[in-house]
Amino acid sequence: IEAEDKVFIKESMEGANEADVAALLDELDMQEALYVLRVLDDELAADILIELDEDDQFKIITSMEHTELAALIDHMDSDDAVDILNQLGVNEREDVISHLQEKEKSAHILDLLRYDEDSAGGLMAKEFIKANQNWTVVQTINEIRRQAENVEKIYSIYVVDNKERLLGRVSLKRIILSAADTKIADIFEDDQISVPTHMRQEEVAEIMRKYDLESIPVVNVKNKLVGRITIDDILDVIREQSEEDIQAMTGLSDDVEESDSIFRIAKARLPWLLIGVVGGLMGAGIIDFFEDGLQKVIALASFIPLVAATGGNVGIQSSSLVVQTLAAKSVFSDTPWQRFIKGFLIALVNGVVLGGFVLAVVVFVYKHEFIFGVTIGLAMFCVVLLASFMGTVTPILLNRFGVNPAIASGPFITTANDLLGLAVYFGVAMLLLNL
Amino acid sequence: IEAEDKVFIKESMEGANEADVAALLDELDMQEALYVLRVLDDELAADILIELDEDDQFKIITSMEHTELAALIDHMDSDDAVDILNQLGVNEREDVISHLQEKEKSAHILDLLRYDEDSAGGLMAKEFIKANQNWTVVQTINEIRRQAENVEKIYSIYVVDNKERLLGRVSLKRIILSAADTKIADIFEDDQISVPTHMRQEEVAEIMRKYDLESIPVVNVKNKLVGRITIDDILDVIREQSEEDIQAMTGLSDDVEESDSIFRIAKARLPWLLIGVVGGLMGAGIIDFFEDGLQKVIALASFIPLVAATGGNVGIQSSSLVVQTLAAKSVFSDTPWQRFIKGFLIALVNGVVLGGFVLAVVVFVYKHEFIFGVTIGLAMFCVVLLASFMGTVTPILLNRFGVNPAIASGPFITTANDLLGLAVYFGVAMLLLNL
Repeated sequence: IEAEDKVFIKESMEGANEADVAALLDELDMQEALYVLRVLDDELAADILIELDEDDQFKIITSMEHTELAALIDHMDSDDAVDILNQLGVNEREDVISHLQEKEKSAHILDLLRYDEDSAGGLMAKEFIKANQNWTVVQTINEIRRQAENVEKIYSIYVVDNKERLLGRVSLKRIILSAADTKIADIFEDDQISVPTHMRQEEVAEIMRKYDLESIPVVNVKNKLVGRITIDDILDVIREQSEEDIQAMTGLSDDVEESDSIFRIAKARLPWLLIGVVGGLMGAGIIDFFEDGLQKVIALASFIPLVAATGGNVGIQSSSLVVQTLAAKSVFSDTPWQRFIKGFLIALVNGVVLGGFVLAVVVFVYKHEFIFGVTIGLAMFCVVLLASFMGTVTPILLNRFGVNPAIASGPFITTANDLLGLAVYFGVAMLLLNL
Repeated sequence: IEAEDKVFIKESMEGANEADVAALLDELDMQEALYVLRVLDDELAADILIELDEDDQFKIITSMEHTELAALIDHMDSDDAVDILNQLGVNEREDVISHLQEKEKSAHILDLLRYDEDSAGGLMAKEFIKANQNWTVVQTINEIRRQAENVEKIYSIYVVDNKERLLGRVSLKRIILSAADTKIADIFEDDQISVPTHMRQEEVAEIMRKYDLESIPVVNVKNKLVGRITIDDILDVIREQSEEDIQAMTGLSDDVEESDSIFRIAKARLPWLLIGVVGGLMGAGIIDFFEDGLQKVIALASFIPLVAATGGNVGIQSSSLVVQTLAAKSVFSDTPWQRFIKGFLIALVNGVVLGGFVLAVVVFVYKHEFIFGVTIGLAMFCVVLLASFMGTVTPILLNRFGVNPAIASGPFITTANDLLGLAVYFGVAMLLLNL
């Protein structure tokens, strides 16, 4: 394909969908991808650039001339343009913007760059159709015609008053089905579901999901309509969020992908592994402390992994349920106190079952003394209660301090649980076995 | 609110959004919720019923009369109706369908019930607008007018030939901007992105995300257009999937929520905890086997938690990265063999760092003999390699056998890793310390 056959590339690419071409370019090296983009016309190249992986995007935009990049950005929606520009340094960014042809677009972009990337303002685009409530259907259609070039997908048309304040929305379907001289004021729906510019993107996603919206208007503090967010951006937000949660739970400290370099992946994994190792070494300290007792009843050592593993599993289970509830942001009917009691009761049930099971196996299968079985069983019971308590409380605390609560299921808390579990285990053993 | 004031309830509910009312009803008990639904008119009640939690939905529909339920279903889209009916037994389902007023709807529903709930066919709705390619714009608008009642949201109008085969789509915007006598054949886009009825819902979600679609047509084996899937259903699929993954990773065997009863949650947690406990007890067996050696060098016991925890952490990290890649379904440029090598090299780097660190701490901080430090360090190194290998291979194998690979990060594999790690640890110790 890469035999410099410009005409062939151009023809074959122009029939294809931009997402498919982007997937193809992801496979090529940077020079080849850049070459292909330069052969294509600007509008198609802009669409493809938006669809690329962030890593590839970065490589390509940093090796393009600023005028060349500006020509592509002229063909992008303002929100996509801002995503691209946010990857550049401040000076380069300004230089690229100064090369833009469309003055309206550069004003939009400068406006959007002011918002936090993770807020509704950072997600929204300036391209949308709005209609004054006093317009007729014909006037609105003319506005649609005027904006047809800029606004690729129209979902709802937002209705505003003379001061540009959001009043509601009217669907294209409604426009088509109404007589030409109908006033917009008579046909629009006045449900004002909108989000303020400063709302966090996760909350926007949750609202759009709850109300089944494919686009949502964004308003400023004066309820003035300033932009709209479309569902395709929200899908990316949801996907990012679930990846972040899983990474937090599995202790990857950095956003890595399997295709990254060996050292980058190794580096992303090391911090949490080191924390685990330090925890393990502290655990060694705890066991050392009980070495005399251990020397007398060597069989105690055999059940260390059992106690540690159960503590870890219980902790992760409890925290994941809490994290899930926190993420769903459903109205909390339970107070923290009620949740604590409930968690305690669940742990009680599981603790009794597991403790009893372990007692039975230790006494009847492993043929240890009864008091030894009671020791292991009771230790299990205490560890289940403790780990469940930690697993419930930690994510709630983390959430209150604004930290992603999914971390609570990660190695840090698991390690802390392990240490507490060990201390409890040996404590119980010392007491019951008189060591 | 619940003071039987019908008029008040009716008036206050009718202004509100159905999703808000549903959230409110979720808080009421079943009798109260049922009472409110009966006061409201059928169309609103149907919308609210769709928005309810699945548990509440089930309680309400099973305590309604079949004729009453049928009256609500008459106001639902076919896909929502099927979701509701799927919760009933086969006989009740048929009885409800026989009470439906609209014969076209009951035919649609019977058709949709044939498909697997998790396939494209199970997600799609029969309500959509299609236009023959030979129609003019005016004819199409008339069709939209005719269907306006049934099809709430129009995204694209699907274009078909005389045999109902899908040819492409045309946007409402395009319809509005075209002259009345323009032929559809001249203005439609012929990108045929569609999904077959049997495609799994996760794949549908991925395609819609990739191509930024808000609706996608569903075709049968003859490429005949049979339904469409809208983005709001896909959002629910994505959310469900990420919850499932997290549950698989954290070892909840059943779809539970924090608001469920204590025994239900306890029961959902027990199976995996028991597996962990059985694993721990087997671990006790392994350590028992090495009891003589342990008796001689009691300090070996101290480092059991360290080895076990590191193995667990490494295993989870490796598998989560693989699971993420599998989920993203990106083109795999690496062969399994290449990935294996890469995983091995990453583990090598981390193994050397962690092993060295542990060696140093054991010798210089804990003041053990050098050969003892080497034993612990080398065991760490082996465990990192082994756990990384297991963490990479297991999800790939599970995926190949059609099991959700996220399970690989769950308690089952972690437990298996723990056991292997223990065996390796004591094996290394026996060899190096001549026990």
